[in-house]
Amino acid sequence: MKRLLIANRGEIAVRIIRAANDLGIETVAVVSEADRNAAHALLADQVVPIGPAPAAKSYLVADAILAAAKETGADAVHPGYGFLSERASFAAAAANAGLTFVGPEASVIEQMGDKVRARQVAQAAGVPTVPGTPGGVSEAVAAAGEIGYPIMLKAAAGGGGRGIRVAGNEAELKVAFPQASGEAASAFGDGQMYLERFVRAARHVEVQVLGDGSETVHVFERECSLQRRRQKVVEEAPSPGIDERIRTAMTAAAVRLCKEVGYRSAGTCEFLVDDETGEFFFIEMNTRIQVEHPVTELITGIDLVAEQLRIAAGEPLRFRQSEVTRRGHAVEFRVCAEDPERDFLPGPGKIGEVRLPGGPWVRTDTWLAPGSQVPPFYDSLVAKVIVWGDDRPIALRRAKRALSELVVEGVPTTTTLLIELLGRQWFADGAFTTGTLEEWLARRAEAGA
Amino acid sequence: MKRLLIANRGEIAVRIIRAANDLGIETVAVVSEADRNAAHALLADQVVPIGPAPAAKSYLVADAILAAAKETGADAVHPGYGFLSERASFAAAAANAGLTFVGPEASVIEQMGDKVRARQVAQAAGVPTVPGTPGGVSEAVAAAGEIGYPIMLKAAAGGGGRGIRVAGNEAELKVAFPQASGEAASAFGDGQMYLERFVRAARHVEVQVLGDGSETVHVFERECSLQRRRQKVVEEAPSPGIDERIRTAMTAAAVRLCKEVGYRSAGTCEFLVDDETGEFFFIEMNTRIQVEHPVTELITGIDLVAEQLRIAAGEPLRFRQSEVTRRGHAVEFRVCAEDPERDFLPGPGKIGEVRLPGGPWVRTDTWLAPGSQVPPFYDSLVAKVIVWGDDRPIALRRAKRALSELVVEGVPTTTTLLIELLGRQWFADGAFTTGTLEEWLARRAEAGA
Repeated sequence: MKRLLIANRGEIAVRIIRAANDLGIETVAVVSEADRNAAHALLADQVVPIGPAPAAKSYLVADAILAAAKETGADAVHPGYGFLSERASFAAAAANAGLTFVGPEASVIEQMGDKVRARQVAQAAGVPTVPGTPGGVSEAVAAAGEIGYPIMLKAAAGGGGRGIRVAGNEAELKVAFPQASGEAASAFGDGQMYLERFVRAARHVEVQVLGDGSETVHVFERECSLQRRRQKVVEEAPSPGIDERIRTAMTAAAVRLCKEVGYRSAGTCEFLVDDETGEFFFIEMNTRIQVEHPVTELITGIDLVAEQLRIAAGEPLRFRQSEVTRRGHAVEFRVCAEDPERDFLPGPGKIGEVRLPGGPWVRTDTWLAPGSQVPPFYDSLVAKVIVWGDDRPIALRRAKRALSELVVEGVPTTTTLLIELLGRQWFADGAFTTGTLEEWLARRAEAGA
Repeated sequence: MKRLLIANRGEIAVRIIRAANDLGIETVAVVSEADRNAAHALLADQVVPIGPAPAAKSYLVADAILAAAKETGADAVHPGYGFLSERASFAAAAANAGLTFVGPEASVIEQMGDKVRARQVAQAAGVPTVPGTPGGVSEAVAAAGEIGYPIMLKAAAGGGGRGIRVAGNEAELKVAFPQASGEAASAFGDGQMYLERFVRAARHVEVQVLGDGSETVHVFERECSLQRRRQKVVEEAPSPGIDERIRTAMTAAAVRLCKEVGYRSAGTCEFLVDDETGEFFFIEMNTRIQVEHPVTELITGIDLVAEQLRIAAGEPLRFRQSEVTRRGHAVEFRVCAEDPERDFLPGPGKIGEVRLPGGPWVRTDTWLAPGSQVPPFYDSLVAKVIVWGDDRPIALRRAKRALSELVVEGVPTTTTLLIELLGRQWFADGAFTTGTLEEWLARRAEAGA
């Protein structure tokens, strides 16, 4: 691998360019018209404009990106997260164009992207899944009777929280099914639904894996329960909510699942953990790098993006499971250009002064710089502030310090809300499930109103 | 410990404030007239002006600093490095004022600050010292005849490279002695000299220790051979120039030495390593935090400043020797506001744009911010760029990336010289001794002239 095209923008494009630099690989950035002076354009060795600002006309246009690779002599393409990262057709087209795709084979992306087929893989590997079934509305009604309400409807081809509904009884199910199916059809081009038991008090815990096609290791888990509208807000590693017994069983399950498909690249197996019983269930696998990958990097010392690049280049895994060790605790805070006091209204605009937090065990992954633009076309994540400490309390105190040091002028940000969150006792105690953050935000909005 | 006064400025004051914040300790900054808007003043909870810009009228005035502590209700004082950090009288005065001094007892500072007494401690602990002797010029001439030329003359009370001469024969010794003694008298108020064997091809390797008065651990070594005018420029951990046998013997020697004096705080034992024979010799002990402490932090995960604070507050050491482990490789680059093309002429001035390097495993310890001043009164260190990698080659590639990302406008800096250094094969190979950097700079200056 000599020259890598990064088919993405924002902080993850910057992250991938840095990893490539660290490995001595040249970089090619692609930019929309809105991103001509963005950080990923400034840091890359070459820059290719690929179209107008809306992603559908640039970052989602596979042909334009593959043409940019050909034009610049790139021999590999990294899709980052979002955009084309989990489109099997893009991985296949890249391979057909003679490029090394930094991710698993197209067939594996397709298989794991289909919730029904992914569940079948999990079951074949002896990995528990949430009781559920695919099918139309009549199968759903029948199945829900057996599984018990409330149930959750999910798009079979889905992701990112779209095409999902919770139904408390049969009448609600009959109303929700066509809504969710229609949303899925327009978002994913596929209206097929999947029904499963709704776990009330659940944690979202995910296991990072690395596979080279023959060997597979896990790189421990991440706790991602703090979500708003099914978008993660704060992630940490290790999870404060599972014990060593669950950790051992869950990481082993993720490795079995990946071995079942001969997984090759970095990937993440997401699980729901019933906070009352400790049971865990496989939900889905993401066949790409995750936004929250840095917390795993900080506790293990493993550069996940560099490992993706090495595996894609054909190298075998550089370590065995026994060599993957962890130390301390890491937490990531997503800072978004949104106004938490106006229902998280996105606030695009021109950035004024920027001061990034610094010092020991604070990492800031961002594309922010004085004078840069937050375009209205993309997601509102502007910086990830990631801290490490030798235990969780130290990591959280360091987080408060780091977030207090962060200055971003010109656009609203969620920084002060994140600092406020750090003051909550339930957060300090690690006592939360996937509903906790939204419940707090609702109480907070009421108190303020 | 509730409220800590930081008796220092610049990056180390910022570093100490951050450590105190991480531990929930309030902070008091003291500032000279030149530092009113400096970063340590902005970050601290309280700020006390202590006098005019020259250090002799502010940062070196013990009474003004102790008065500031009294005025603000501080219960502890951290001296940082330089300034008052190794003045036994300051430690004693702080203790007399009822303050916790973050460092060892005044008697230990005094004992280790006197090269002759420190050598006696080392010898009592069975730690090898460079063959040598104290005394006047006639003792020196006699001893040099036995030890063999070249010999090195050092100020008994010295430090920081002042009061040092190398003499190749008796005639040179007779000229050098009064010069060095005079320099020592004016710098340290003490003209007593010490003579020792001059090790030609030597590495400077130092061992970090932590002691709580009863238990002592080492936190591995740092390689600090890359020096210009006896000032360290690049430091790394572990040393690329010693093997496991030397490492084990040297770290054990440092622990013995500290146990000999019941050492309490963080400290550093400096050694010369004969690059030809592998013999090592104790040179001196620094009873304070070192500029280069971050490389140790990055390979061990131990927050050395936080441990200093905990020990000063009376806590026992939190870990045993077997729990101090290391991973990977860390390198620190000192970025100074100096012009390498004009013989490192310091370039004070007003800072324009600043962009600090970021992303994974890059730490920048600095007080730089847009619009800040580099005053002409203090040392010219403006930032320490510290990188970690799972091995030395990765760390060095990451260093190149990080230094390339650093932008400091308005003053000259040594950044490009450091990047150039990264391209030297002898640096990549770790094949250098304390003379190598100056030899390279001399060749470089000749080639450019």
